[in-house]
Amino acid sequence: MAADPFDLHSLAALFRPSSVAIIGASSDASKLGSIPLIHMKTSGFKGPLYPINPRSAVVQDVPAFANLAAVPGPVDLAIIAVPEAHALAAMRDCAQKGVRAVVMFTSGFAEVSDAGERAQAEIKALAHSTGMRLLGPNCMGLINFSNGLVATFHMAFGPKLAPKGRVGLISQSGAFGGLAYQVAQDRSLGYSLILTTGNEGDVDVAEGIAYLADDDETGVIMLYLEGCRDGVKLAHALARARARRKPVVALKVGRTEAGIAAVASHTAALAGTDEIFDAMFRQFGVYRANTMEELFDIGYAAAQARELPENDRVGIVTVSGGVGVLMADAAAARGLEVTPAPERLQDKIRAMVPFAGARNPVDVTGQIVSDMGILERALEMVTGDGTYASVAAFVGSIGRSPINGPRFKEAFPRIRREFPDTLLAVSCYHTAEFRAALDGAGCMLFDEPTHAVRAIAALTYFRRAFAAAPSAVPSLPAAEPLPKAPCDEVTALAVLAQAGIPVVPHRLVQTVDEAVAAAEALGLPAVLKIVSPDVTHKTDIGGVALNLATAGAVREAFNAVTARVRRAAPDAAIKGCLVAPMVRGGVETILGVQWDPVFGPVVMLGLGGIFVEALKDVTFRLAPFDEDEAARMIAELRALPVLKGTRGQPPADLSALAQTLAALSRFAAAQGPALRSLDVNPFLVLPEGQGAYALDAVLIPGGP
Amino acid sequence: MAADPFDLHSLAALFRPSSVAIIGASSDASKLGSIPLIHMKTSGFKGPLYPINPRSAVVQDVPAFANLAAVPGPVDLAIIAVPEAHALAAMRDCAQKGVRAVVMFTSGFAEVSDAGERAQAEIKALAHSTGMRLLGPNCMGLINFSNGLVATFHMAFGPKLAPKGRVGLISQSGAFGGLAYQVAQDRSLGYSLILTTGNEGDVDVAEGIAYLADDDETGVIMLYLEGCRDGVKLAHALARARARRKPVVALKVGRTEAGIAAVASHTAALAGTDEIFDAMFRQFGVYRANTMEELFDIGYAAAQARELPENDRVGIVTVSGGVGVLMADAAAARGLEVTPAPERLQDKIRAMVPFAGARNPVDVTGQIVSDMGILERALEMVTGDGTYASVAAFVGSIGRSPINGPRFKEAFPRIRREFPDTLLAVSCYHTAEFRAALDGAGCMLFDEPTHAVRAIAALTYFRRAFAAAPSAVPSLPAAEPLPKAPCDEVTALAVLAQAGIPVVPHRLVQTVDEAVAAAEALGLPAVLKIVSPDVTHKTDIGGVALNLATAGAVREAFNAVTARVRRAAPDAAIKGCLVAPMVRGGVETILGVQWDPVFGPVVMLGLGGIFVEALKDVTFRLAPFDEDEAARMIAELRALPVLKGTRGQPPADLSALAQTLAALSRFAAAQGPALRSLDVNPFLVLPEGQGAYALDAVLIPGGP
Repeated sequence: MAADPFDLHSLAALFRPSSVAIIGASSDASKLGSIPLIHMKTSGFKGPLYPINPRSAVVQDVPAFANLAAVPGPVDLAIIAVPEAHALAAMRDCAQKGVRAVVMFTSGFAEVSDAGERAQAEIKALAHSTGMRLLGPNCMGLINFSNGLVATFHMAFGPKLAPKGRVGLISQSGAFGGLAYQVAQDRSLGYSLILTTGNEGDVDVAEGIAYLADDDETGVIMLYLEGCRDGVKLAHALARARARRKPVVALKVGRTEAGIAAVASHTAALAGTDEIFDAMFRQFGVYRANTMEELFDIGYAAAQARELPENDRVGIVTVSGGVGVLMADAAAARGLEVTPAPERLQDKIRAMVPFAGARNPVDVTGQIVSDMGILERALEMVTGDGTYASVAAFVGSIGRSPINGPRFKEAFPRIRREFPDTLLAVSCYHTAEFRAALDGAGCMLFDEPTHAVRAIAALTYFRRAFAAAPSAVPSLPAAEPLPKAPCDEVTALAVLAQAGIPVVPHRLVQTVDEAVAAAEALGLPAVLKIVSPDVTHKTDIGGVALNLATAGAVREAFNAVTARVRRAAPDAAIKGCLVAPMVRGGVETILGVQWDPVFGPVVMLGLGGIFVEALKDVTFRLAPFDEDEAARMIAELRALPVLKGTRGQPPADLSALAQTLAALSRFAAAQGPALRSLDVNPFLVLPEGQGAYALDAVLIPGGP
Repeated sequence: MAADPFDLHSLAALFRPSSVAIIGASSDASKLGSIPLIHMKTSGFKGPLYPINPRSAVVQDVPAFANLAAVPGPVDLAIIAVPEAHALAAMRDCAQKGVRAVVMFTSGFAEVSDAGERAQAEIKALAHSTGMRLLGPNCMGLINFSNGLVATFHMAFGPKLAPKGRVGLISQSGAFGGLAYQVAQDRSLGYSLILTTGNEGDVDVAEGIAYLADDDETGVIMLYLEGCRDGVKLAHALARARARRKPVVALKVGRTEAGIAAVASHTAALAGTDEIFDAMFRQFGVYRANTMEELFDIGYAAAQARELPENDRVGIVTVSGGVGVLMADAAAARGLEVTPAPERLQDKIRAMVPFAGARNPVDVTGQIVSDMGILERALEMVTGDGTYASVAAFVGSIGRSPINGPRFKEAFPRIRREFPDTLLAVSCYHTAEFRAALDGAGCMLFDEPTHAVRAIAALTYFRRAFAAAPSAVPSLPAAEPLPKAPCDEVTALAVLAQAGIPVVPHRLVQTVDEAVAAAEALGLPAVLKIVSPDVTHKTDIGGVALNLATAGAVREAFNAVTARVRRAAPDAAIKGCLVAPMVRGGVETILGVQWDPVFGPVVMLGLGGIFVEALKDVTFRLAPFDEDEAARMIAELRALPVLKGTRGQPPADLSALAQTLAALSRFAAAQGPALRSLDVNPFLVLPEGQGAYALDAVLIPGGP
């Protein structure tokens, strides 16, 4: 990726303004413009507040000004809460005054009509030309819990702002931003900052992420995404968050076709294809939540944990063997290791309860009915053993028990303090008081036992993702000019070879004798294919002859192929025939590059034939990426067992495949939009140690 | 399936006893034996209670008896709460007294040791010989909410039993049974009966299901399963519940390898393979929950809904466009139809809010900030339109709003009453009071918006499952005696043909001339294969020759094949060669039968080659089943697009495949354990209208 595209300096006025003006401020609580002032009078914001209202000298007991020009001091941030018809004029006033950032609540722009889109473009252009930063229009604003900036019209943020936490939330939906604040009240999920971006006339989610990545108050980033206009910028921001080791949890809506239709009718944003979003999330270590509750659960867990688990091993302690199995199932399905307890630990547990499940899951059995100390000691033993970086406990309804609740309200925090290197995720039905005690001690608490396991898996995912972050951005080759379209196979293969992609040995021949000589030089049996920039589907018109075992067969094939093509496509320019050895064995894959208007060059990998066609078993990455990332990409194929060798077949040369994918990604990144698309199909991966070859390629240059 | 295996009559004494004795009753509340009496003194149980205690004339103010013989009247049900050493004696006392059913809490049997297993077998044999029904040992007992029978030692069921509901819960885990009761208190999830089966010495989950299927007090059945000893009996019970149109929701633990290890160490039950459980659930219309909360969610939804949705269409109404998309995504992913709103409905919505999302999801937008009536009217419009059998609404945090909460606490029940034919699933953050109002009116209420959709999908699943229930049990063919092992290919194909499975035309030949004549008669090109009961992997020793185009090739192949086999396997008995036409085209599948000790004959279907080997793309059914079920089985293959025709290939003859699967299942069911396994590989499915053929088969008869 290119140089960092973020100007975080200019965002300071938006997030940490010294003074705030509210254009459209009102004393009428039913008006949007009344609410920021209601909130900020008591939110602890230190700087001056300037209500702007042409008809009142005082708004909500605060001295008001008829217009922005009348404000005596400088204005860092202006909130615009006037109807759409007056929004542009308000922006002009801001520019005049030297305002540095604007939050615009006003709706009626790109989200409703073409005329609105044009009006938004005007506002955006004005912001751009004056250097003002603009949040919105059609946004719910932002709330900074560090400085009491409550630049929102959402009622939920009053009368008293919730305590500051470590989670920064960025939402494209204002309604979701408000809801997220309310939901958080039920558990110790505290926010450092809530940013809603609305129509993203200027400031977008990517800039928000970049800001939070550098923000010392923020340890975890939660995202609610509906679409994205600039995927490359978003990728930069996610890379930055990963480099700062800040877990990012994202809920991205718009997955299925029904969903995508709804996004289109709801926002003005372009919905990138979901597969690419998915790939980007994996590539940059973002945890994708599938539901709202999962988003909150994982955000909460990351904020509570502070440290990530040092290994993949999870110890499970339960009061119900069956639930232990359920948790072990969930753990294994999510890539955690339910490692058997070491013998010493099993012995200790059996010494307490002879018939306990001691192996892991540890089931203390119904014995606890007579002695709850058994459960407490088992928890200590597993948490303190050192084998498991994480412990997940299910303790039934203890969190609501009048007898045992108070005991374990003390016990869990004590165990957490005693063994601070082991993460402790507890699941039980509980009271608010029980929750507060565990949350306060840095435990994680859940209702559903599998969600305790899911949280540990998510934290483990982040540890792996941070460890896998590339040490350097791949250096790109010089972008050689691509041939003009249409581009024949020999030309395409030459471009690939120059890009460092292994290509089957081949020769372009014009005559029968040249064909025979080439086949004999390259080795029989041979393949012969027509070469013409005007023929894409060679096989369909008889332009390909395979498995030519003898010189005679090559001779015959040359004549037959050229004759068939001339007959089927009399106007096609024929450059000759390509002769190559018939390569056998190996696994056929498909490599591809597609230039995406949102994400830039995207690299695809799939297994060949029926796998791609019928099973859609493909995976993607944004270019460029390194060989390690390519290896992870390969590992995502459902058909991976085919590549690893099955039915007595040898394993394929996965390192050759990974090298090729990385080279292809550098080539694609260097070319950018100049390469519209490239299909390498098949790309034959030979058995381990024997390399891999592009056997055919279709290259479509982009641009003018 | 055979005749109904249930003797529900004898279970009456367990579920509806006239009198209850408690052997090991105590006044000491720390003893298990004290608890049933504590509960039942106030639970409303009408019959006499007889505490049995050799050392006290009165237990908990109730007159007690030194032993069972001393009880004056008859005893229907005895609860045994004595240590393991005294359990058998207590059982003998029960037999002596003429007790009709026993609930045994006592642990220390099959779940802990081989000696315990032998002791359990003795107890079981005693119950069997005397006709007493036995629940347990090592069980938490049962609770019947209809008659106040609280035959359990779990503390949670006192001091006052929760109101009766429509859900019958059967759990193999006692701890889970208690927890489930407690969890239900938070929402209007009421039980008719809770049954925990423990070691299943006699009464098992299947009998519990059969009982609840016929129980008028029970409308929905929830299951918590750890394993199963008799899958055929379980299938019978599930079929019975389906025939009575009672939704069954199951949480089955023991999915992954880690999980299975834990089950083995926890219960004495055999864990059937999870794939077969999965198949059985689909086959009998059981909804499989993946988590505890999903089990409760779907059980609650089925109990609230009472009627199942009449179509697959869901209308979505939200206060947040983004969440609407999330819900639409979830709905589409779960097979619901997010049908666009009819024009008249869209017009009505746009007449209220010009820029609303009116298509479905319906997004009433931020306009509700100024007029909440918009939301109420939109809900009425979508629910009352008649297009959607179900409506899922997301209304943010309205359920907690001091202003709007009371309004919608009235509005939702009113809308539900006005349009009783439309299911209404609401999602919002809410208070207990809000929940009670909606629950009481037969709405469904959830926190998470996608769970509202999931509930509707589950109810829709039940409607489909009930509609798909076969009208008659497939009639089985007479079970012809199978050939003795080992069984050669020609013999196996003959068995298949007799079972109504289409088999490729073929001849068994002994000489070169016969081979040529057969090939010419059946049509060239031909296939030639060695026939020997002693050679299973024919290809490995050169026992197969394909694609023989001429008589000369057949002649040469006959000699070569027989020579190679004689060299490679000099001791193999050779019956000759099989000659068949070389069939081309079509899709290779694998059909199989496996006799499973738990589930009986299980039929497998997979796509051939790499699909089975590398992707494990197979699906199962318990035999027998009809063609409709076979069609659903086929539709479960991930590689279904291959069968439906892809890359220009014609669609395969799916009806021939379904007919074959159904015939195979009847054959397998008729044979039972006499057929240990059968692989039909490949079974070639030709293009539509051209049928399908078994090309090869390996049959392994079962032991005598």
